[in-house]
Amino acid sequence: MATVLIVYATDYQNTKKMAEAVAGGVQSVKDCRAVVKEAEQAGADDLAACDALVLGSPVHMGSPDWRVKKFIDSACSQHWMKNSAVGKAGAVFVTGSGYGNTGGGAELTMLAMLNNIAELGMIIVPFPKTAPGYAESGLQWGPCARTADSQFNQLGVSENALLAARSHGANIARVAAAISGRKIL
Amino acid sequence: MATVLIVYATDYQNTKKMAEAVAGGVQSVKDCRAVVKEAEQAGADDLAACDALVLGSPVHMGSPDWRVKKFIDSACSQHWMKNSAVGKAGAVFVTGSGYGNTGGGAELTMLAMLNNIAELGMIIVPFPKTAPGYAESGLQWGPCARTADSQFNQLGVSENALLAARSHGANIARVAAAISGRKIL
Amino acid sequence: MATVLIVYATDYQNTKKMAEAVAGGVQSVKDCRAVVKEAEQAGADDLAACDALVLGSPVHMGSPDWRVKKFIDSACSQHWMKNSAVGKAGAVFVTGSGYGNTGGGAELTMLAMLNNIAELGMIIVPFPKTAPGYAESGLQWGPCARTADSQFNQLGVSENALLAARSHGANIARVAAAISGRKIL
Amino acid sequence: MATVLIVYATDYQNTKKMAEAVAGGVQSVKDCRAVVKEAEQAGADDLAACDALVLGSPVHMGSPDWRVKKFIDSACSQHWMKNSAVGKAGAVFVTGSGYGNTGGGAELTMLAMLNNIAELGMIIVPFPKTAPGYAESGLQWGPCARTADSQFNQLGVSENALLAARSHGANIARVAAAISGRKIL
Repeated sequence: MATVLIVYATDYQNTKKMAEAVAGGVQSVKDCRAVVKEAEQAGADDLAACDALVLGSPVHMGSPDWRVKKFIDSACSQHWMKNSAVGKAGAVFVTGSGYGNTGGGAELTMLAMLNNIAELGMIIVPFPKTAPGYAESGLQWGPCARTADSQFNQLGVSENALLAARSHGANIARVAAAISGRKIL
Repeated sequence: MATVLIVYATDYQNTKKMAEAVAGGVQSVKDCRAVVKEAEQAGADDLAACDALVLGSPVHMGSPDWRVKKFIDSACSQHWMKNSAVGKAGAVFVTGSGYGNTGGGAELTMLAMLNNIAELGMIIVPFPKTAPGYAESGLQWGPCARTADSQFNQLGVSENALLAARSHGANIARVAAAISGRKIL
Repeated sequence: MATVLIVYATDYQNTKKMAEAVAGGVQSVKDCRAVVKEAEQAGADDLAACDALVLGSPVHMGSPDWRVKKFIDSACSQHWMKNSAVGKAGAVFVTGSGYGNTGGGAELTMLAMLNNIAELGMIIVPFPKTAPGYAESGLQWGPCARTADSQFNQLGVSENALLAARSHGANIARVAAAISGRKIL
Repeated sequence: MATVLIVYATDYQNTKKMAEAVAGGVQSVKDCRAVVKEAEQAGADDLAACDALVLGSPVHMGSPDWRVKKFIDSACSQHWMKNSAVGKAGAVFVTGSGYGNTGGGAELTMLAMLNNIAELGMIIVPFPKTAPGYAESGLQWGPCARTADSQFNQLGVSENALLAARSHGANIARVAAAISGRKIL
C-alpha cells in the first residue's frame, strides 16, 4: 500500500487535467492510492500522510507558479526542518506553451521543484524515454504537456500528454511501493 | 542616467540589508539611481520605469521566496507579453544559511530568477571573481550572504557580504548606463 | 570594431552550420568580425583576442559535447585564473533532436556553457523572444536547432533555425561593440 | 546483491579519495559490492554490469571534467540508445575549491551529471541532510568536498568529506538493493 500526494496549481485547468491523469496512473497500480490537491488547499499534514509527493505546475517565466512555491515554502519546509520526509519518493510534471519549440523553460521549472524534493531527502523518480507518451510530451525529469502553439493559441491537453502523465503516475506508485516503510536513507 | 530597480523579499531583514547595499553600489556610480522595493509592493509600473532589474531572495528549498515569484508571475509576465523589457539589464543576489557548506541551493535559486530575466530579454550581469567581496560571499551568478551557520544559528549579514552587494550594484549600474537608451537587442 | 569568437563541436555538420550562421549575423553588424573554430582547434590565444565568446554544442545527454568541455577546461580556465576575460560578452547556442518535444535537455546544456561564461566574468547575451527565428527555434538562453524528429530521423538544420542563429549573432555583436574597450566590470 | 559502479576523474587525487570513500560506504552494506574506475578506463560494459552508477568529478568552470563527459558521451549514450539502464539507480558527488563560499558551481556540476543519469532512466538518490557529514560537506544532490581555501591553497580532502562520501555510498547501495532485479520503471 502506497499513498501518492499530487499537488498542483492551475490557470486554465490544463495542469489540473495532468494532475488527474497522474492520479489515474497511480491508481492503476495494485494497492496504491492518489490524493490530489490544489497547492492552496494542501498543507504539511498532507505531506506527512503520503509515501510520495508529485508537484505539478505551469511553466511561468521559467519557474513554478508562485502558489506551488508558497506550498513549498509553507508546508514542505516544515518537513525539511524535522527531516520527516527523508526516504519518501518524489517526482514532477509541468504544462507549458510550445513557443520557441525548445521547452520554454520547462527544464529549470522542473528542477526548481525537484530541488525542493531533493532537499526533503526524497528519492527522485525520473521519466524514462521508454514510458508511453514520452516522444511527444516528455523530458527526462518528467512529462510536459504543451498547451499552446507558437502563436499562443490555447490547445488544451493532448491525449498523448495525458498518456505520459499516466505512465509517470504508475512509475511513481511502483517506486513508492518498493521503498515505502523501509529505512533506506 | 540609469535607474536600477531592486526587488526583494525578506524574512529576517538580511535580504533587505543586502538590497540596500546593492542600492548603495548603484548610487556610487555617477548619474545612476536606485529604487528599492519589497516584492509585495512592486508592480509592473516599477519595471517599466527602470533600466535594470535586480532580484534578491532568501534561498528557500532551493528556489526563490514565493513572494518574489508572485512578483515575477504578476508583474514581470506583463512585460514578457509586451516585449517591453527587452534589452534592459538584469542581475540577482541571494541570502542563505551555511548548512552543507556548498551553497545550499543558492545556484538554482539564482538561476530561477535569472530565467525570468532571460525570458524578459535582459542582458545578464554576472558577478566576476575580481569583484570586492567575492572570495567570502560570491558565486558567478551573484553575491550570496551566508546568514546562519551549520547549526542554524542566525549570524546576520557580514560586512564582507555587504561589500559584495555594493560591488555588484556598481557593476550593474555601469552596465545599465552603457546600454540604456540604445537599441541593441 | 568588435571580434566575436565562435567555438563549437559538431557530429553531423549541423552545429557547424549554426556556428556559421551566428558568424553571418555577427558580420552583418558594422565593424564587427567573426572567428569560427572547432573546439579542438581553438585555444587560449583565440579567447585572448576576442571581445565576445559564443559556445555552440549538440545536446548530448543533457550537457555539452566533451570536446567543448575540453576547450573550457583547457583554454577558458587559463583566463579564469588570470581574470583576463572579465567584462567581455558571452552567449550560447545548441542543436538537438526533437525527441520528447520539450527541449531534450537543451536548457541545462546551455546553462553548463553559460556557467563557464559567467565564471569568466562575461556579460551574458540572452535570446529575446522578439528575435527573428525564436518562435520555432528559440529558448531564452539561446537558439536551438532541432535536427531530428521524434523517430530520430535526421532532418538537418532548418532555414528558421539559421535565421535564429543569425539574429543571435547580430545581437551579440552589438552588445560586444557597446561594451568593448570599456572598463565596466 | 547489488553492484555499484563509481566512475570519476581526478586531478590531485582528491576526487579519487572521495570515490574510494563512496566505495567503502557501498561495501558496508550487506551483499553489496563496489567497482571503482577512472573515467578514461570505464566503458559501456561496466555500466551494463552494474545496478547503480555514481559519477564523481571536480568542479571545473561550473560543469564536470571533460573526461567524465567523454565517458558519458561515449559509454552512457550507448545505453541511452538501447534503454538498457532504465530503472537502475544513480547518484553523484563532486570536489571543489571553497572560493566564493557558495559552492563555486557545484550545484550545476552535479545537475549536469544527474541529467545524464535521468536521461538513462535511473532513479536518483539524493543526499539527505540527515546523512553523517552533510553539515560540512553536503548539498541536496550529493556530497561536495572542499579541497582548497579562498586563497586557492590546496587543503586535500577532510575526514568530514570522506564521512559524507561513505554515507552517500551506503545510501546508494541500499536503494540499489531495494530496486535491483525488479521491473519498476
